[in-house]
Amino acid sequence: MSGTLYVVGTGPGSAAQMTPETAEAVSQAQEFFGYFPYLDRLNLRPDQLRIASDNREELDRAQAALTRAAAGARVCMVSGGDPGVFAMAAAVCEAIDKGPAEWKSVDLVVTPGVTAMLAVAARIGAPLGHDFCAISLSDNLKPWEVITKRLKLVAEAGLVIALYNPISKARPWQLGEAFEILRGVLPASVPVIFGRAAGRPDERIAVMPLGEADASCADMATCVIIGSPETRIVAREGKPDLVYTPRFYAGDSQ
Amino acid sequence: MSGTLYVVGTGPGSAAQMTPETAEAVSQAQEFFGYFPYLDRLNLRPDQLRIASDNREELDRAQAALTRAAAGARVCMVSGGDPGVFAMAAAVCEAIDKGPAEWKSVDLVVTPGVTAMLAVAARIGAPLGHDFCAISLSDNLKPWEVITKRLKLVAEAGLVIALYNPISKARPWQLGEAFEILRGVLPASVPVIFGRAAGRPDERIAVMPLGEADASCADMATCVIIGSPETRIVAREGKPDLVYTPRFYAGDSQ
Repeated sequence: MSGTLYVVGTGPGSAAQMTPETAEAVSQAQEFFGYFPYLDRLNLRPDQLRIASDNREELDRAQAALTRAAAGARVCMVSGGDPGVFAMAAAVCEAIDKGPAEWKSVDLVVTPGVTAMLAVAARIGAPLGHDFCAISLSDNLKPWEVITKRLKLVAEAGLVIALYNPISKARPWQLGEAFEILRGVLPASVPVIFGRAAGRPDERIAVMPLGEADASCADMATCVIIGSPETRIVAREGKPDLVYTPRFYAGDSQ
Repeated sequence: MSGTLYVVGTGPGSAAQMTPETAEAVSQAQEFFGYFPYLDRLNLRPDQLRIASDNREELDRAQAALTRAAAGARVCMVSGGDPGVFAMAAAVCEAIDKGPAEWKSVDLVVTPGVTAMLAVAARIGAPLGHDFCAISLSDNLKPWEVITKRLKLVAEAGLVIALYNPISKARPWQLGEAFEILRGVLPASVPVIFGRAAGRPDERIAVMPLGEADASCADMATCVIIGSPETRIVAREGKPDLVYTPRFYAGDSQ
């Protein structure tokens, strides 16, 4: 008798930004797998089992959760943000793809959530109002040459760029190098948004031009959004600046 | 005495996918502006005023809402999905940027939501599990040459591509042309997901290889996701196929 694996996203952190669908999945599940700060967001009941783990080891965690679900349990895999964006849904699918046949019989329910770039964008205006991309800066999962090639191409394409996993203790130089690469393609005036912990009590949002963007403004909880040449800043007296990318592409005519 | 403008996203359509934060903003507001099917999702109270409008005319709608908010009302601008992704937050920011000074004093509160590509991705597995982009195929807002250039560059970059606004009565040929362009860059085997009305009762999700992708499978309510060369399909007996893009980039070594 096969069970269920819910793969849920808590959203950016505040309970007010987690969907009722995810809250219902959490209420139904018996066993919870995930990085411990994400599990801490859930206020689980005493009868619900926590199997917290460190930030890495996503595939091991997915396999452990699938093993329990295949044995009949109602299991919940917890990601921050949206589980499909640089998070656990891909690790679970990979484990099913490569694992024993019975894992394909598990009922898999993925609930979408508000991913970090959307939460940061909402707090500053509408920087993602035109075409954009999301790129993970972690070179644990792909070669750095692939990342640099992608950054050049998307900047040349005029897309706004959201960078996930911009920096960590083990990857201290990649974000500064990414800014250097982008300064070779984009105007120095393009706004860069450092959005940390959007929607949480320790939120910190800063905007600076690409020419002055400093990688030390980011930490592991930061999503960095780099505007396109079309992105604009609106100054407001007594209120934070707004940053938005117009719906219309003006191009050289602007 | 300046009022408040909430700019909210209902999510894909089901109330279970709208955040409590958005529900609270809706509860606080007195006057509602938006495309009428989005307003219909909200179950407004009799004391709440609806100013429904057609799908176009976003800037007019933003100006009307700001006029009321600047006069002291608590106003809500309603988008489907996330208000920051090809939706009303950018139109509101643009109106503030170019409008009278008093509009800059309005309290602007944008609440993020689950955007269509995340809802579609959750229903099929994890196609956005690696780097991806979101491009609007509407050439009302940018020249078609800009769109074709962007499609070529992001395909060359190896990003998964989510296409918003893929087709409409006034824009019948653009999606077919986009598939042609992508077939020139990507393998014919790359999976294409047609995700219509994800999470709603009339949901319809189809997957086919890029070589056979047929634009007539899409309508205005469809988000089209085109995989990268890394994207994989997992067949499951008695269940729909899963589609995911692995976290690891295998490249030519796979």
